[in-house]
Amino acid sequence: MTDAGTSDRRRAVIDLLGALAYGELTAFERLATDSGLAPTIADRSALALMATKEFAHYERLVARLEEMGIDPEEAMAPFEEPLNAFHDSTTPSDWAEGLIKAYVGDNLAADFYREISTLLDDDDARALVLEVLADTGHASFAVDHVRAAIEAEPAIAGRLALWARRLVGEALTQSQRVAVQRDSLSQLIGGAEDLAEVTRMLARITERHGERMKALGLSG
Amino acid sequence: MTDAGTSDRRRAVIDLLGALAYGELTAFERLATDSGLAPTIADRSALALMATKEFAHYERLVARLEEMGIDPEEAMAPFEEPLNAFHDSTTPSDWAEGLIKAYVGDNLAADFYREISTLLDDDDARALVLEVLADTGHASFAVDHVRAAIEAEPAIAGRLALWARRLVGEALTQSQRVAVQRDSLSQLIGGAEDLAEVTRMLARITERHGERMKALGLSG
Repeated sequence: MTDAGTSDRRRAVIDLLGALAYGELTAFERLATDSGLAPTIADRSALALMATKEFAHYERLVARLEEMGIDPEEAMAPFEEPLNAFHDSTTPSDWAEGLIKAYVGDNLAADFYREISTLLDDDDARALVLEVLADTGHASFAVDHVRAAIEAEPAIAGRLALWARRLVGEALTQSQRVAVQRDSLSQLIGGAEDLAEVTRMLARITERHGERMKALGLSG
Repeated sequence: MTDAGTSDRRRAVIDLLGALAYGELTAFERLATDSGLAPTIADRSALALMATKEFAHYERLVARLEEMGIDPEEAMAPFEEPLNAFHDSTTPSDWAEGLIKAYVGDNLAADFYREISTLLDDDDARALVLEVLADTGHASFAVDHVRAAIEAEPAIAGRLALWARRLVGEALTQSQRVAVQRDSLSQLIGGAEDLAEVTRMLARITERHGERMKALGLSG
């Protein structure tokens, strides 16, 4: 590999860690904020606990960037606008929407980062990415609660299915935007074909999202 | 001490732990939400870290209530409305207000719980209360940032001083409300004189607040 190639791959690892770190920080803030929508103190605590786990991941990623001699704020900066745009356009209006966002968002992010991490040749970074993606407890908590909410009031299923579709749509929009702006990430994913391969990867992720929504009793 | 006296004091300890626990949970949620007002990612992380410390305190208090055979949600329930009312009436409109709220709120709560904890004859509960009140880092972080903000723009000092006065006013209103509603707490504080002693205690706390505001360059 040429020096330029090495440097591109390093840039891609930094981008990946930066995006993931900023994603964890915003996940922390939004989960903590959305916990105010929970109907009981026990549910609020459960969401708050998930939020603190996201923050612990954030701290691990920041520490790794610092070990690499990188300013974490600089590494996160390119992802601030797209991630903020995603969250601003998907503010949950009630508890069920908040739960679905926690569940959908967490799984989409996990699928995305897992796809990318297989391409990394930095073993430490790959191990860290896989570790922070280990289930944070969103899955079973959200699934149980959403199922119970739909059973209690079947009429909400349609609205929640639309909400889930909107979440994945906004996530795809922002991912495409990042892929276009960050050459190093796109090249890591697709080599010479870059954007076409990015699109195929997003299609695989969307498909897995659809399967999860079906399992939840919401059409994908 | 009569059985009724023992039971009143136990009730007061439960009230104290319940109020403190609910206070920590809301502090977590509000700090995490207010971190969105911070101008930089570093400041947002700092506020998020403070929030996670509040949540760790919350978990300790809940565990203690459970050890005592008490349902934590029931212990917290009487304080939900007054603490929510406090936060709803004091939503910061910018970063400086958020910092002052973190600083003022934390110190007022610490003064209040310290005053009460000296009256407890449950050594474990007293030790726990003092431990969770140990500095969470709000103080120096907030003081440095507020001073810098006022130096950069001296005109904001008047508005921030009014804001601090409003915070303490709302805190007093809600404390008085709790004191009137929760006999066991008032009796712990004042014995036979109850409400009069509660008022004197609040006056001492207000005085210390005024000293802190002076030190911050804001008239109390």
